[in-house]
Amino acid sequence: RRRRRELRSRMELLIMETQAEVCRALAALDPGASFAVDSWERKEGGGGISCVLQDGEVFEKAGVNVSVVSGLLSEEAARQMRSRGKSLKAKDGKLPFCAMGVSSVIHPKNPHVPTMHFNYRYFEIEEADGTKQWWFGGGTDLTPTYLNEEDAVHFHKTLKEACDKHDLKLYPKYKKWCDDYFYIKHRGERRGIGGIFFDDMDSPSKEEVFQFVKSCAKAVVPCYIPIVKKHCHDSFTPEEKLWQQLRRGRYVEFNLVYDRGTKFGLLTPGSRIESILMSLPLTARWEYMHTPPESSKEAEILEVLRNPKDWVH
Amino acid sequence: RRRRRELRSRMELLIMETQAEVCRALAALDPGASFAVDSWERKEGGGGISCVLQDGEVFEKAGVNVSVVSGLLSEEAARQMRSRGKSLKAKDGKLPFCAMGVSSVIHPKNPHVPTMHFNYRYFEIEEADGTKQWWFGGGTDLTPTYLNEEDAVHFHKTLKEACDKHDLKLYPKYKKWCDDYFYIKHRGERRGIGGIFFDDMDSPSKEEVFQFVKSCAKAVVPCYIPIVKKHCHDSFTPEEKLWQQLRRGRYVEFNLVYDRGTKFGLLTPGSRIESILMSLPLTARWEYMHTPPESSKEAEILEVLRNPKDWVH
Repeated sequence: RRRRRELRSRMELLIMETQAEVCRALAALDPGASFAVDSWERKEGGGGISCVLQDGEVFEKAGVNVSVVSGLLSEEAARQMRSRGKSLKAKDGKLPFCAMGVSSVIHPKNPHVPTMHFNYRYFEIEEADGTKQWWFGGGTDLTPTYLNEEDAVHFHKTLKEACDKHDLKLYPKYKKWCDDYFYIKHRGERRGIGGIFFDDMDSPSKEEVFQFVKSCAKAVVPCYIPIVKKHCHDSFTPEEKLWQQLRRGRYVEFNLVYDRGTKFGLLTPGSRIESILMSLPLTARWEYMHTPPESSKEAEILEVLRNPKDWVH
Repeated sequence: RRRRRELRSRMELLIMETQAEVCRALAALDPGASFAVDSWERKEGGGGISCVLQDGEVFEKAGVNVSVVSGLLSEEAARQMRSRGKSLKAKDGKLPFCAMGVSSVIHPKNPHVPTMHFNYRYFEIEEADGTKQWWFGGGTDLTPTYLNEEDAVHFHKTLKEACDKHDLKLYPKYKKWCDDYFYIKHRGERRGIGGIFFDDMDSPSKEEVFQFVKSCAKAVVPCYIPIVKKHCHDSFTPEEKLWQQLRRGRYVEFNLVYDRGTKFGLLTPGSRIESILMSLPLTARWEYMHTPPESSKEAEILEVLRNPKDWVH
């Protein structure tokens, strides 16, 4: 019992540290911009802190959100929380739960700097007989407007190194899961060039999964910030900005139509809408029948969104 | 049997005429803009014509789409097509169907000109025993960025007159249905100031419902075009344009998260994505925690989106 409580508070600490670390890195790159910091409480139990930078010099919109909530779940809601439906036995139809996580979406201004998203979370559900089910989920992924192979390799390699310290099977498995998850079915495209994604992770042990999640969370800044630094002063044309806006439209389509977290949040009474929709870009665009010319830079990124590549082998 | 075929072709004619009439009216108001006209075929049977005007002087994006499709539906898909689930008996699990409709979304540039949407459609499904189920659906609704009471009254009054010719109960019933349907639950707001909306309309008779739908379709130009003419040269500030863009974001949220037609289309294999997503605005914006000041023009429209008003009594 002591062990469990310890891990729960260590995960809470990791979540808070990750938020602080990412916010510090963003602030250092965009010193003129200011963060709106809102802490909020959920009347059913728990709360969170949202940090959002908007309309800066480098970042169009960047949000980092943490939340730690607990309460009672209906059997239906509990089932929906797990991507693979495991049966859960409820006491009087209600299951005590605890959920905590850090999530972030960073939309830069310059079309040569990719958008980045990450999320690391931990769940616990107590069944009628007192058994505790627990699992971790998370991931980090990149959505460039234009393909830069060197950046793609750096991003994936950094994530692979974080995974490889724990188990060599993790990166290939979670890289594929990421490509499958961020699929915009009606477009036949992925949202971006991927990264890693996993859910329902409950083995080999709570301690080992936590250590893996910690490595992933610590890899966020090194996998992304060097790419921002490298390109945030690149020059760009109005046509490149326009293509970025069209890609932002696809980002909105994925988040509102497919993303499990967003859908779950929008349907959950008492959830904080502004923190959930913080992931949407500041601006987006939809043109009827837009098709980039063959062999253009725009067609090049579409090709890898349609057919994901292996970046590290 | 002759009667039925006649009605089907008269509905097809009404759909085509409505498309032509609306396109002519838009072209007259925005003479410099050109329509992209695409006809497309569905390999399972049928097809359609999409007319889209983009980045004109008066209109940011305006699309009018017609489609007439037929084929076989699964029982599951047939059930989803009706908003109130009626049981349908299939032959070998498949139901022959025919669906036709005209739909349109018009997003003007000037924030003082509201967005307008309409859709009129007809369905037929043949059951195993040869029984034919048929129904009509449709509606016309207005989404202003700023409230203009005179325009709201004109819009609703024109629709009410079209309804009242057939049955005095129709306008109040379909006005309420519209307010209920275009509800963005996670925002606690309606998409716009409503109009009329109905589905599954199959009484008093096929001929009478057709005549009602015809009156509604004929009311589209008179309820909307005078409002465009009145305001398309109004001056506006950058702040008013920004508020329009934020409202466009809400339009995207409704269409991607709630709209039954969009969701059904995105999930239907072989549907034409560009025609379905033609309803999205050219540009949209999401700001974190945007709240208009009390007693502002922005707060005024929010108030009627939160608490729909009766415009004609």
